[in-house]
Amino acid sequence: MTEISTLGEFALIRHLTENIKIHNSSTVRGIGDDAAVLDYGEKETLVTTDLLLEGIHFDLTYVPLKHLGYKSAVVNFSDIYAMNGQPKQLTVSIGVSKRFSVEDLEDFYEGLRLACEVYGVDIAGGDTSASMTGLCISITCIGESEKGKTVYRNTANNTDLICVSGDLGAAYMGLQLLEREKAVFDGDKDFRPDFGGKEYLLERQLKPEARRDIIKILNDENILPTSMIDISDGLSSELLHICKESAVGCRIYEDRLPIDYQTAMMAEQFNMSLTTAALNGGEDYELLFTVPLALHGKAEDLDSIKIIGFICESQAGASLIARDGTEAPLVAQGWNR
Amino acid sequence: MTEISTLGEFALIRHLTENIKIHNSSTVRGIGDDAAVLDYGEKETLVTTDLLLEGIHFDLTYVPLKHLGYKSAVVNFSDIYAMNGQPKQLTVSIGVSKRFSVEDLEDFYEGLRLACEVYGVDIAGGDTSASMTGLCISITCIGESEKGKTVYRNTANNTDLICVSGDLGAAYMGLQLLEREKAVFDGDKDFRPDFGGKEYLLERQLKPEARRDIIKILNDENILPTSMIDISDGLSSELLHICKESAVGCRIYEDRLPIDYQTAMMAEQFNMSLTTAALNGGEDYELLFTVPLALHGKAEDLDSIKIIGFICESQAGASLIARDGTEAPLVAQGWNR
Repeated sequence: MTEISTLGEFALIRHLTENIKIHNSSTVRGIGDDAAVLDYGEKETLVTTDLLLEGIHFDLTYVPLKHLGYKSAVVNFSDIYAMNGQPKQLTVSIGVSKRFSVEDLEDFYEGLRLACEVYGVDIAGGDTSASMTGLCISITCIGESEKGKTVYRNTANNTDLICVSGDLGAAYMGLQLLEREKAVFDGDKDFRPDFGGKEYLLERQLKPEARRDIIKILNDENILPTSMIDISDGLSSELLHICKESAVGCRIYEDRLPIDYQTAMMAEQFNMSLTTAALNGGEDYELLFTVPLALHGKAEDLDSIKIIGFICESQAGASLIARDGTEAPLVAQGWNR
Repeated sequence: MTEISTLGEFALIRHLTENIKIHNSSTVRGIGDDAAVLDYGEKETLVTTDLLLEGIHFDLTYVPLKHLGYKSAVVNFSDIYAMNGQPKQLTVSIGVSKRFSVEDLEDFYEGLRLACEVYGVDIAGGDTSASMTGLCISITCIGESEKGKTVYRNTANNTDLICVSGDLGAAYMGLQLLEREKAVFDGDKDFRPDFGGKEYLLERQLKPEARRDIIKILNDENILPTSMIDISDGLSSELLHICKESAVGCRIYEDRLPIDYQTAMMAEQFNMSLTTAALNGGEDYELLFTVPLALHGKAEDLDSIKIIGFICESQAGASLIARDGTEAPLVAQGWNR
């Protein structure tokens, strides 16, 4: 008997899905990217799905159900944007145990609806059933992309620039903050946590947004990334995906990593490595993408986008160049959850 | 606080999804049918999703994981066929607790792959994560249908004939059989259940098939149903869906209900009402559809299809005409799970 833990999530799914045959010409891309790509006419149809389980992916002690609904939708939209697509429909299945009330599900749906309103997505299917324990959420998002403009993760080229949107590590710091307050709170009913000055961290953790704006900017500027992925498991993990799938290496610079000052302050307070948080924090839902070197000037001028390094040949490996100029191999320490 | 149980599944989902707005012209049909209908070009894209939770939807005491994988896929295909579509892609997310091994998941995937092979469907997405308790499976199936030939459940007309494929109640009897043997087995390691002569019941419960053949027959015969639904929660429940959504009534005849002899024998052995089993058993995955009265002769000649009654005006209600000619209102006693 092989324990699942001996394989790890990525190896397991690779193991389970190897040699799967494609039957239909409409299956442009199956397993192995942020979304499946289907061809049903003039546009490509994108489908992505997420399973969110209580106690594994979220903790209802500090995550309000409305926020959970919002976030559940948004993280799926993020996968569609990461293909250079537009999310259009969403279906949701919920399994709930007896401790949940109708009002709880209303809260969840309110968040879900709000996200769909904001991003112009239709809720096109819904289903609830009982669950033996806890809350179980399955979301499928369907989107579209222009033929020839769908961006995959396996198409980065040597000398491409590596770009990232927004800033990194804040969602992770928000989680640390919530976990700390939860521990302090434990047993004390009058406890009121003080989150003053840390609102950004909480927002990044509890109510993340998907980078639709970045997709629009790139389109307006006529920049088609050579590869793209959204950062859900941490920058290192996602960049290593791009490198592995594209058979390339990379160099990124520690001093180029975009970090908010609240994140930096929190890391200091927690006595944690800020770089580790930015590289491995996870749940940032920023876009990580590559563009040809020739677009350097254009990319540098873009709002909310930072060039953090470049793609190199595979043999050169993937590494981080520290502030002092030393090089260390990039290692994925994603959440693996 | 309103307990979920006070509403029931259908009322709850209706409650949660009422007033949901449609933003995109590509959303031909959202919540309220077997699958969402999307328009991305020349064909309509069908999407259906199912959440299957251990202890609620399946019992691993007597359901082998390979069978579970097969069935999980097939029940989704059934939803696509029920729209008069063809399933094309499938994505699957699995949450597993520590008691499952890699081999367990392999078994599950083996069944899933086999179903996809048999029905010509591509596995276009896969994902596994941890779970606190038990096994949790989410499947999304995407299919296509010819524009103008997608068949909904809200379009039955007065005087239409009501048709059903295959036979009813066998899957339910298979479940009763398995539950009985499980109770007997409890604690006795040397126990070997005797399923001789009941293979059909077990197969209907453990390895159901979706009625692709019926869709083909209807197409070959140039019969376009006026409405269609697949029977997952029992004939009564599904027929009442058609009636409610189409604002019509119905009459079905007890002596027209198609029932296999193994089902009948088992009902007698269990001292259960055979008609109740056929009406409310659930998990039959047969197709229930309506055709115009003018097609009576044609419909009557079709293999594996039986005319069981007719659609009438809404005021006349929905009822079953018993063998003795008495009329009783149809009541949904679906599994509601």
